[in-house]
Amino acid sequence: MGMNVKNLSRRKLLGGIGAGALLAGLASPALAFRALEGDTLPFRRDAPQLMLHYNENSLGMSPLATESARLAVKNKANRYADDAIAELRSMIAADHGVPTDQVMLGNGSTGVIRAVVTAAAQVNAAVIEPDPTFGDVQRYAKAEGMAVVTVPVGKGFVTDINAMRAKAEATPGPLLINICNPNNPTGTIVDQAALRDWITSAPPTHLFLIDEAYYDYAVNSDGYASLAADVAAGRENIVVARTFSKIYGMAGMRVGYGIAAPETAKRINPFAATYNLSAAGVAAAITSLKDKTYYGKSLASNARGKAILIDALDRLDLGYIPSHTNFLLHRIGSDLASYQRRMKENNILVGRRMTSEDGWNRLSIGTPAEMTEFVRTLDAFRNRGWV
Amino acid sequence: MGMNVKNLSRRKLLGGIGAGALLAGLASPALAFRALEGDTLPFRRDAPQLMLHYNENSLGMSPLATESARLAVKNKANRYADDAIAELRSMIAADHGVPTDQVMLGNGSTGVIRAVVTAAAQVNAAVIEPDPTFGDVQRYAKAEGMAVVTVPVGKGFVTDINAMRAKAEATPGPLLINICNPNNPTGTIVDQAALRDWITSAPPTHLFLIDEAYYDYAVNSDGYASLAADVAAGRENIVVARTFSKIYGMAGMRVGYGIAAPETAKRINPFAATYNLSAAGVAAAITSLKDKTYYGKSLASNARGKAILIDALDRLDLGYIPSHTNFLLHRIGSDLASYQRRMKENNILVGRRMTSEDGWNRLSIGTPAEMTEFVRTLDAFRNRGWV
Repeated sequence: MGMNVKNLSRRKLLGGIGAGALLAGLASPALAFRALEGDTLPFRRDAPQLMLHYNENSLGMSPLATESARLAVKNKANRYADDAIAELRSMIAADHGVPTDQVMLGNGSTGVIRAVVTAAAQVNAAVIEPDPTFGDVQRYAKAEGMAVVTVPVGKGFVTDINAMRAKAEATPGPLLINICNPNNPTGTIVDQAALRDWITSAPPTHLFLIDEAYYDYAVNSDGYASLAADVAAGRENIVVARTFSKIYGMAGMRVGYGIAAPETAKRINPFAATYNLSAAGVAAAITSLKDKTYYGKSLASNARGKAILIDALDRLDLGYIPSHTNFLLHRIGSDLASYQRRMKENNILVGRRMTSEDGWNRLSIGTPAEMTEFVRTLDAFRNRGWV
Repeated sequence: MGMNVKNLSRRKLLGGIGAGALLAGLASPALAFRALEGDTLPFRRDAPQLMLHYNENSLGMSPLATESARLAVKNKANRYADDAIAELRSMIAADHGVPTDQVMLGNGSTGVIRAVVTAAAQVNAAVIEPDPTFGDVQRYAKAEGMAVVTVPVGKGFVTDINAMRAKAEATPGPLLINICNPNNPTGTIVDQAALRDWITSAPPTHLFLIDEAYYDYAVNSDGYASLAADVAAGRENIVVARTFSKIYGMAGMRVGYGIAAPETAKRINPFAATYNLSAAGVAAAITSLKDKTYYGKSLASNARGKAILIDALDRLDLGYIPSHTNFLLHRIGSDLASYQRRMKENNILVGRRMTSEDGWNRLSIGTPAEMTEFVRTLDAFRNRGWV
């Protein structure tokens, strides 16, 4: 309804009715403002769009990686990127202390996830995962006709390892257990001791996919640990997936990878990308791994942006889930549909519905400047009683 | 052995023994030449590498597409390419006169091929394909545990449609029939009437994958026809796959697509790329579709390069299979291993073993300048009795 009223008003204005005449004919100044502006705040009317909906990295890719990718486009667009792919595979293997055949590559970590799901489908595995979590495992599993069991997250939106374990132990047959850690869209990390205890006592028919897309943001968090070292140590029932999309700002370049023990990787690699990565993406990934300056800057930018956001949420008394990622799940003091629409009318794209309970939004952490602008908008929303 | 002799000689020379002294100590001038040079021709010693082994397009990507891809790298590397992917999908759909949901996207046509194979695996289809042909269908099918039946190509390396049909009609259950047309590595086109008759009378459980990666090079060949129009007309038992890797020189950018009737596409699309293409590749593909000048230049370059090659093969009396593609299968007058090694020592990469009979090589058609240089090398090989 709000949309219709607003659009009607805009059409009228465009139709030649002067703003002054329109204002004069209206009883309430507040209503006049709404009729003129819809839900658009004056300072956001022609402001640049803030893309805070897909957990991308607003900082942009490393300038050195950008140059590498541009050179690859210029010089190698017409050539299969085999040699560069082999180099990237070797770098990843060396980083994790495993041989190259324990590395699985993909067009984004979603490519690796798909390979893991397809391999699990070969043994008719069922999937167990928390709800909510990143949707690709469920989407691919359903395409493969696999059963998917979801276990609601527990207190504070934390993935409930013990409830998942109980469900797994009560489910016969092979299982793919999907644990995104830190989890998307909640931003939380799992109980590491409980996870490790489960993994070390699970039967060999239970494969754990540990999606560590947001690893870099959590690595210094108390209680967080990657399982990559467990792969390097030879543990056979886990696959660790990583992506260049987040910390390296490469979402549009489509490069991700996984690592697993030799026999596990051997089952998954036939479904992963072998020579099917782009020359530009691979060149950018190779340079990104070397560019420690950008890595530090990217981490610091996210930390600063998150601090700006959290400060405002505290001040506005809007609750949130402590985040170990580049996004944050927070209360919005209204229904999500209205909030999302109003934000969109102010050229700000925020997350879609991801929680069973309404009144929450997953916001991607932009640059400090973007977060300052977002907070300014949120303050204006508060002034209008919208949050 | 030749490698060892050559390397030993080189080490000796580098060790400080003058070439004159070495020559003086050798009985035969011919042997002296071999010892000094190995199989490297003087004019190829420091010459640029010719990459004629992967059926890439040596001309390079369209300059306009290159600029689009570089802009995407610069401005959009950190953003998922959803909007651009939707635009590309719409352009492809419009080109073929089908709705967008009948388009399947992939990281290269191999991504589409994988999606088709995975969809076929859901109904436990077996695969029937010619031998030799492009290997990805077989590779993916075996990973999925599917049975693969191969039917040797017939006279003149032409895919034997009647023999394949007989095999298909004798095989119970669902089938995926893989027909690469023009075929790789033979360069031949199929008997169109026989194929159409088969397709129109096949049971609905037989799905035809028509891999038209080399379509553009064959479109004006007598007797060739794409099956894309049959998809647009609603035929449900075919998938047509295309790629930007060949005519558009985009092998390193990984963009391909397929089209199929609504219900067929619906079965395949859950396994295809949805938002999993690179911003750079998609930008390049969009611009490539618009750049008719490059398209014409790319076709003409290949035709001219092929004419230069064929003229030389005729002159040297080396047989070949008439090619409707950007490569050509030809006799080499020796075993392939020696030929391939000698070409490599002359900085020329040629195709690997692909035929059951030895003495053939699949050569990618380079630019006219590259083909002239290749012919110069081939002439020198003839002078030495190597071909």
